[in-house]
Amino acid sequence: MNFLVIGADAAGMSAASRAKRNMPEMNVTVFEKTHDVSYSACGMPYNIAVPEKAIEDLVVRQAQVFRDKQGINLLTGHEVKSIDPMGKRVLGVTYEGQKFEFPYDKLLIATGGSPLIPDLPGFDLPGVMALKNLDHGRRIKAYIDEHSVKKAVIIGMGYIGLEMCDALRALGMEVAMVKPNLNFIPWMADELSDEVQREVESNGVKLYKGHSVQKIESTNNGLMVVCDALTLNADMVIVAIGITPSSECAIAAGLETGIKKAIAVDRQLKTSDENIYAAGDCADAYHVVTGEKTWIPLALRANRAGWAVADNVCGGQAKLEGVAGTAVFKVFDLQIARTGLTPKEAVKFGFDPVDIVIKSRSRAHGHPGSTTIQVHLIGDKKTGRLLGAQMVGKEGVAHRINAAAVALHNQMTVDRFSQTDLAYAPPFGPVWDPLLTAANQLLKKMP
Amino acid sequence: MNFLVIGADAAGMSAASRAKRNMPEMNVTVFEKTHDVSYSACGMPYNIAVPEKAIEDLVVRQAQVFRDKQGINLLTGHEVKSIDPMGKRVLGVTYEGQKFEFPYDKLLIATGGSPLIPDLPGFDLPGVMALKNLDHGRRIKAYIDEHSVKKAVIIGMGYIGLEMCDALRALGMEVAMVKPNLNFIPWMADELSDEVQREVESNGVKLYKGHSVQKIESTNNGLMVVCDALTLNADMVIVAIGITPSSECAIAAGLETGIKKAIAVDRQLKTSDENIYAAGDCADAYHVVTGEKTWIPLALRANRAGWAVADNVCGGQAKLEGVAGTAVFKVFDLQIARTGLTPKEAVKFGFDPVDIVIKSRSRAHGHPGSTTIQVHLIGDKKTGRLLGAQMVGKEGVAHRINAAAVALHNQMTVDRFSQTDLAYAPPFGPVWDPLLTAANQLLKKMP
Repeated sequence: MNFLVIGADAAGMSAASRAKRNMPEMNVTVFEKTHDVSYSACGMPYNIAVPEKAIEDLVVRQAQVFRDKQGINLLTGHEVKSIDPMGKRVLGVTYEGQKFEFPYDKLLIATGGSPLIPDLPGFDLPGVMALKNLDHGRRIKAYIDEHSVKKAVIIGMGYIGLEMCDALRALGMEVAMVKPNLNFIPWMADELSDEVQREVESNGVKLYKGHSVQKIESTNNGLMVVCDALTLNADMVIVAIGITPSSECAIAAGLETGIKKAIAVDRQLKTSDENIYAAGDCADAYHVVTGEKTWIPLALRANRAGWAVADNVCGGQAKLEGVAGTAVFKVFDLQIARTGLTPKEAVKFGFDPVDIVIKSRSRAHGHPGSTTIQVHLIGDKKTGRLLGAQMVGKEGVAHRINAAAVALHNQMTVDRFSQTDLAYAPPFGPVWDPLLTAANQLLKKMP
Repeated sequence: MNFLVIGADAAGMSAASRAKRNMPEMNVTVFEKTHDVSYSACGMPYNIAVPEKAIEDLVVRQAQVFRDKQGINLLTGHEVKSIDPMGKRVLGVTYEGQKFEFPYDKLLIATGGSPLIPDLPGFDLPGVMALKNLDHGRRIKAYIDEHSVKKAVIIGMGYIGLEMCDALRALGMEVAMVKPNLNFIPWMADELSDEVQREVESNGVKLYKGHSVQKIESTNNGLMVVCDALTLNADMVIVAIGITPSSECAIAAGLETGIKKAIAVDRQLKTSDENIYAAGDCADAYHVVTGEKTWIPLALRANRAGWAVADNVCGGQAKLEGVAGTAVFKVFDLQIARTGLTPKEAVKFGFDPVDIVIKSRSRAHGHPGSTTIQVHLIGDKKTGRLLGAQMVGKEGVAHRINAAAVALHNQMTVDRFSQTDLAYAPPFGPVWDPLLTAANQLLKKMP
């Protein structure tokens, strides 16, 4: 049996490795268009912040290990250009320009996502760069080094943009961020978003909200980011306005797509073609709160989906429950976490949301070193269910959010969630965990 | 209506305050035998570690505030000696020796727990002290100060003993701990217990396991703790071998008791007498994993039970789901957390447990500052359910345990728990959260 995988990052290599472990006799071939495999994309901003670290430190396992130790036929520099579902083969071209074609019994598309780049003048200038794959990281590091970058503009204020502003400030650069939306973190409650904004600004980052970039120009002085009523000079521009699923091949092959053109898969990760699976940032997923399809490109679900595909290709019946949209990131001294739906998303999916923002503390009454934790909790008036949670604080946020995530997997009501037995000790929080205080307060607003 | 409360700490004052908020016209009277109310008992070891802090810093709300602002008839220095359920009254004596009696319509017993003191010679010597209420803390602080204590022996190695050894080392004392059991933390997997032991010993604490204390003697040099084949000299001895529910009054009044003589209550916190409730460390509770009664004296459930009693006294129907036995404590640089059952407890309650210990990391591959996290996860072979979790590590343990606790509230299987969408970012953990890695590994051992 020929199991073919397109893409050698989280989903692809998780699937390939597990398939080989499940059935050592299986032929497993992976095509990867770049020369990098199995790296921690999420670690790139942290790596960029440290010039003496090589970007290759982020590689989790070397290509040669996959080949020699695991017996995977891993072909880097091989870009798959098209899929022929009727003929059950893929066609492509190597880095050196040579054409290839390869048959499959089962195929996994794990092509990931690509950064969105606006179709505007100047976004192809040298020094204007996005960050998604290891090669992007490599280029950014080299550019900073070679051009002694002093000033950077980041277009976009999403979590990659925010992680990058932290990294570039750590390198001593002047950093400005710009975006069209007037809300700083639009999916957050104002109180929480304001706290993050204060943290970013107090670390010397200039924020320009409400400005649409029109073009980027090259000047004698470097680059100029031109908006309607604003121009920003920079030695380097990072484009971080989001990513999009890399589903072109799948679309061309006639596979069904869903939200944001992600490849549509069922709970077994199967596409509309019996023999083709998709996993990772290129594929959609079920949301455990709505039960509907969603597209949330995050690392854990990519790894998990890769495993499930391997099990199913080997004759199993693995089904994924879905994602809760749990995420965390760090910007300067703040931890920012979320899980589930925002009030706006809740309305969109037919819920009748009610929400609350509370302030609590990271340590007990009288315990030194305590800082503020803000919690935004969202419930459904109709069913009493917990729908989502967001938190901001200097400590005790990153892992605390997981309690709410597990509650969402179980469709807990806010009432039942408020009854959960969470850990308490003075160095780690108040007797009533901030999530429980929020649940207690939210209950008062529910029928 | 007369609502009477015996005991003015977590459960008692939570109930009294909430009853007054629910029904401002209600007569709420609280009898407290000491002069301290509403303090953070759990904060005492941390307070003792800092000589310049007054123990009274741990008082969350002053008695006068309860009286003036909340209209609670709070009577300190009033010890209730007996309850007359037929006559619906309590009888007692004040600190000054004056007898009193008081009628009630509804009564809450919130008498807490008392430290276990062995009935052996010398445990009543000056300088031999337990730690449970604020007055114990006050006496220990005063004793350390007045006697310039240089050497301490702690009898017992439970979490109060361990928190105290940390506090006393912070004060620069020589500290030895002694107990009869050969296992350091008997409810933990060996690998985790060993790690905690190494941490304690590497901080200069001498551990004497397998030694039963026979007596304590007063010598010219201070105190001498005498075991069979060991004597330990000390300026001060802390007795931390556990606590017992303070249920004497309830027993004398004919109320039913359960495990460890804790007052038996139903899910509405009602005792075997229609008009009497019990809450906090003196009462038992339902365990969410076993569905059976348990006695786990912890702060959160005391506060929560106090609220539920207030709501029920005011005509509500509040029912508590129960406890998962979630707990966390800190000793030196380690965080130690647990929830649910140990394998031994699981067997006792008819489960067929299978367990695993894994080592994971507190941060992602390649992220600096990462430390080891050990996870012990316990599942049931018969039902596939998750039964319990324990963790040890320098960071990322205290709040991570809550994800497992919420899973226990929902009777999740290990399989479903392994599918939960937990937060990931490089500074906060690996892509696969340590709990998920443990769940994935445990699944392989389950049928």
